[in-house]
Amino acid sequence: MKSKQILKKAFLLVGLFGLLSGSAVSQFQQNPVVSPDIHENGSVTFRLMAPTADSVKISGSWMQGWGAAIQLEKGEDGIWERTFNDLTPDYYNYFYNVDGVRTVDPHNPWVIRDVRNTFSALILPGEESKNVQLNDQRNGTIQEVWYPSPTLNMDQRRMKIYLPPNYYESDENYPVLYLLHGGGGDENAWTELGFANRILDNVIHSGDAKPMIVVMTNGNPNQTSAWHVAPGHEPVRESDSVNPMATELFEESLVNDVIPFVESRYRVKTGKENRAVTGLSMGGWQTQKLALKHPDVFNYFGVMSMGIIEETQFGMNAQNHLELTSQNIDDLKESGYELYWIACGSDDFVFESVNNMKRVLDNHNFDYVYRESGGGHTWDNWRLYLSEFAPMLFQ
Amino acid sequence: MKSKQILKKAFLLVGLFGLLSGSAVSQFQQNPVVSPDIHENGSVTFRLMAPTADSVKISGSWMQGWGAAIQLEKGEDGIWERTFNDLTPDYYNYFYNVDGVRTVDPHNPWVIRDVRNTFSALILPGEESKNVQLNDQRNGTIQEVWYPSPTLNMDQRRMKIYLPPNYYESDENYPVLYLLHGGGGDENAWTELGFANRILDNVIHSGDAKPMIVVMTNGNPNQTSAWHVAPGHEPVRESDSVNPMATELFEESLVNDVIPFVESRYRVKTGKENRAVTGLSMGGWQTQKLALKHPDVFNYFGVMSMGIIEETQFGMNAQNHLELTSQNIDDLKESGYELYWIACGSDDFVFESVNNMKRVLDNHNFDYVYRESGGGHTWDNWRLYLSEFAPMLFQ
Repeated sequence: MKSKQILKKAFLLVGLFGLLSGSAVSQFQQNPVVSPDIHENGSVTFRLMAPTADSVKISGSWMQGWGAAIQLEKGEDGIWERTFNDLTPDYYNYFYNVDGVRTVDPHNPWVIRDVRNTFSALILPGEESKNVQLNDQRNGTIQEVWYPSPTLNMDQRRMKIYLPPNYYESDENYPVLYLLHGGGGDENAWTELGFANRILDNVIHSGDAKPMIVVMTNGNPNQTSAWHVAPGHEPVRESDSVNPMATELFEESLVNDVIPFVESRYRVKTGKENRAVTGLSMGGWQTQKLALKHPDVFNYFGVMSMGIIEETQFGMNAQNHLELTSQNIDDLKESGYELYWIACGSDDFVFESVNNMKRVLDNHNFDYVYRESGGGHTWDNWRLYLSEFAPMLFQ
Repeated sequence: MKSKQILKKAFLLVGLFGLLSGSAVSQFQQNPVVSPDIHENGSVTFRLMAPTADSVKISGSWMQGWGAAIQLEKGEDGIWERTFNDLTPDYYNYFYNVDGVRTVDPHNPWVIRDVRNTFSALILPGEESKNVQLNDQRNGTIQEVWYPSPTLNMDQRRMKIYLPPNYYESDENYPVLYLLHGGGGDENAWTELGFANRILDNVIHSGDAKPMIVVMTNGNPNQTSAWHVAPGHEPVRESDSVNPMATELFEESLVNDVIPFVESRYRVKTGKENRAVTGLSMGGWQTQKLALKHPDVFNYFGVMSMGIIEETQFGMNAQNHLELTSQNIDDLKESGYELYWIACGSDDFVFESVNNMKRVLDNHNFDYVYRESGGGHTWDNWRLYLSEFAPMLFQ
């Protein structure tokens, strides 16, 4: 072979890798290890190439708490693996621990972030996971939107907005669900971890829910956006995400800034009867506050995995909250509301706080619907709650 | 302390963690290791807690290729670290190698995906990185949109659309840039790796570029969307992302499906003079094909990091491409075009193929502008090219 031909062959070989990767990382493209490996019978094998490691463990969201870990077995080829036969179809997260170092699965390109931690992700297809699967029909649109918040003295804050299927093809006006995340989360949480758009697509296409717009805000009034969207912004620190709950500034910005912006930009049905609000954990606390302080704004409330704590904690003034409850709950009853829905897992650490809340509401003869699921303070439950709550709205 | 009080304290303590995380991963919330640690003088320290590891290395996009790796030093506390003093302000990716296992930085929650690999990310603020930083002014909107593609026989495919600042506040019509990714990429590549929306926000706000809509499609005609958006879809396999380049089906779907959809849904200036197309690597090949086969559709072309290969390879028929060039290049000259821009890095492995292309074009006395940068087949270059190309459009 002439040297020019050899050079050309070499060029083309390098080129093949480069074109495939479309970037400088081409040399890592070839990856013989498949993980997770979903078999036809529904079992899943997790693998990690780690020839020199002494120990490889896996922790998965299907285990009992993130402290649980199961050892992988080392094969002669340096590939560690473990097969699970009893996983039900669902959305799962997991990570490895290699000789004491936590790592995502380097063989799985799907990585998600929850607060400050990263996890590998997979969806095991089946009936139980149908609400997070892609619908064959035309699905809704997600927007990433900047809006001004005079209440928070910010020229621009970021939120995500879900427009239902056929929004652009119709000239209808739509009701709006305001969907709030938990402490440490941000405006990306409900789409990235909660699959809110996928769930709405599915319950709307099935006819279980009315078409609606969903507004996903950033509930931390000290942030303009998810921290990595705004380079130079620091991650949420422990101290940051607590006190903002107490200030109630976010709740005011939602009513004064977000709702008018949404109702002026999109084709929205206005008025209390066309607005719902729900949130998990910190967002459940904010939902309670919105119900009490703005009884004329929303007609549907969903308080997920959050009740009333018994003393001042987390920077939130519980006594003040209870007084507000006493003062304002009659205002809400008088103004009227269609649904006050409370949902909590029986293993949730806030379970007792939810009992507190129910006692207070019962003392006021306040109508609510209580939904108790199994499980704890998890996205599994919040995805379930959203898929149950959305169909009850605007009917 | 009474046992009830002790129980309550325990509940509140657990609760504090849970509220902060908003999820079941609360026990991992507390993380004493800061990495990357950006110091006031601009140096950066990378750390990893790995008390039992024998070796920890870091590979960064500032090094010479991803094969390069630098050892971290182990401290007595089991934390490995390395400080870099000479990094210019820029956007960087990196990963660790712990005893032979590749891992993202578990202390850094910002993880990005490039093709099938994950990287930790940081932005070092400064003049050189200003185009990827958040602008203080009101910025544009990103949409994630499903659209029908009869050409590809798909009821829904996914794309991302950037609407310029003030799109919603004005009633103007806008010109459109169609922005194509490389092999192995998808409709998320230009926003997640290329910061296309951030770059457009900045060059529009500075007045360097006209306000325009940017359409980011999925250039793999065998995919409905980025694979993890559609659960159950397999990752792009090596063989998948090559042949689609040869079919030219994507190019036909862009002209027949995407452009009509965009021009019917958004406030768009129509006609050739209001359309531009650019792409990198595989997308640069597709841009050439669009120029040759559809000379009446676009007025501006940007061919980034891709030329003409000398023989049939990557599943693409080079001979056919050259014949097309000879046949159709006069059609394009006759139809007229404002700009044919070619950009490539001097270290790019496709550099010689770009010389081939220039020779062919020169033989046809075809007008083009050539921009040669340093560096290789990297997102650093493609971000640079976009920030230079966008200001030349629609002026």
